[in-house]
Amino acid sequence: MIKASLIIIGDEILSGRTEDKNLSYLAKWLGKLGINLCEVRIVLDIEKDIIDAVNSLRKRYDYVFTTGGIGPTHDDITTDSIAKAFGVEARIDDDALEKMKEFLAGKELTAPLLKMLNIPEGGELIYSPATKAPGYKIENVFVMAGIPKIMQGMLEGMYDYLERGEIIHSKSLDIMVGESFFAEDLAEIQDKFPTVLVGSYPFSRDGVYGATIVLRSTQESDLDSCELLVKELITKF
Amino acid sequence: MIKASLIIIGDEILSGRTEDKNLSYLAKWLGKLGINLCEVRIVLDIEKDIIDAVNSLRKRYDYVFTTGGIGPTHDDITTDSIAKAFGVEARIDDDALEKMKEFLAGKELTAPLLKMLNIPEGGELIYSPATKAPGYKIENVFVMAGIPKIMQGMLEGMYDYLERGEIIHSKSLDIMVGESFFAEDLAEIQDKFPTVLVGSYPFSRDGVYGATIVLRSTQESDLDSCELLVKELITKF
Repeated sequence: MIKASLIIIGDEILSGRTEDKNLSYLAKWLGKLGINLCEVRIVLDIEKDIIDAVNSLRKRYDYVFTTGGIGPTHDDITTDSIAKAFGVEARIDDDALEKMKEFLAGKELTAPLLKMLNIPEGGELIYSPATKAPGYKIENVFVMAGIPKIMQGMLEGMYDYLERGEIIHSKSLDIMVGESFFAEDLAEIQDKFPTVLVGSYPFSRDGVYGATIVLRSTQESDLDSCELLVKELITKF
Repeated sequence: MIKASLIIIGDEILSGRTEDKNLSYLAKWLGKLGINLCEVRIVLDIEKDIIDAVNSLRKRYDYVFTTGGIGPTHDDITTDSIAKAFGVEARIDDDALEKMKEFLAGKELTAPLLKMLNIPEGGELIYSPATKAPGYKIENVFVMAGIPKIMQGMLEGMYDYLERGEIIHSKSLDIMVGESFFAEDLAEIQDKFPTVLVGSYPFSRDGVYGATIVLRSTQESDLDSCELLVKELITKF
């Protein structure tokens, strides 16, 4: 199984002001490649916190993705932190500089624009169609912008760097009764199908409790047989 | 500064299927008490992952909150994992049992219902008006359900256990131009006000780039003076 993690960098998510939109997009995008998102950390714009998260996760997972903090303002400290995490310097990348100059076509190359061309040594540029300031890959860490549209563009540029794993297929079915009524039957179904991951995710809609039963497996035939039993279970209520 | 962290437990968030609604609610709720949410980890329903997150964060932060995994189904493993993280046993709590029996009024106390009354030794029960299955507090760790309505109820029950910190006031202003145009001026404003945290959070709306400038401080007069400078900056564009 190929495992990935995501570090979301930014005070604005942790203050509750902004809702992150990148996690679910990344999770589904990776899922189509057979890569499983296994952990997410959301950290403040604090150098030590970013370094700790990067160094802890890059050892534990095949891939680490980061979003946020690569813009031109003083609170964008992701690149300097990534460089320190890898023990290298960040410097203006020649290719990135050339591309930016082309884009500016004689207009002034200001210090904030230049800041976004800073890349840790060893980093490989990854462009998004939405911006001339690149993301990059350094070893197994993929550094992306936080704005969803830019992030999604950069992700496409990372496609060729990623290995493919076995695709996990899934089925999901709603059951409109509280979990305690079907928990034992569902556990029996899980026991019968060790190759299927059976999850139950409760919800409350207009005061009525129910749950979404999600079945996940790389084995489609097992998934189909398991689904039959869950459908039977649902008709009981 | 009083610092908190949150562990969101559940495969459904990491698969991208469900969007978490608890983070922003908790962040704002804590903010009103002067408690700062400083880190979030989202982990799979895997015992070792939950234990690692709990044991790492409870040392680093004043408070750790967890959401999810305390229901009655086989994939609800939060309580057993929390107990192991603290090196204690989980067992049926007498008070919780009594309350549940009262609620059932003679109806059958099934094994799934009983499972939800399992509490790690040393845990103090915390009820939500929305359910008879309690959350709990163990040392500085607060364990809550994942369903937002239930989670929000449990949070109210935790109110009396939490210390109050200095309230961080904030102002936010939108500027409708790309960050690189104002980054240097904004950095100067940040330098002038060391007691104010000046953040810039870029966005793209209908293809137009802009940013929300967020000012945060415990000092209201500094905040007001800083806001004046940012307003002046905005009129430049």
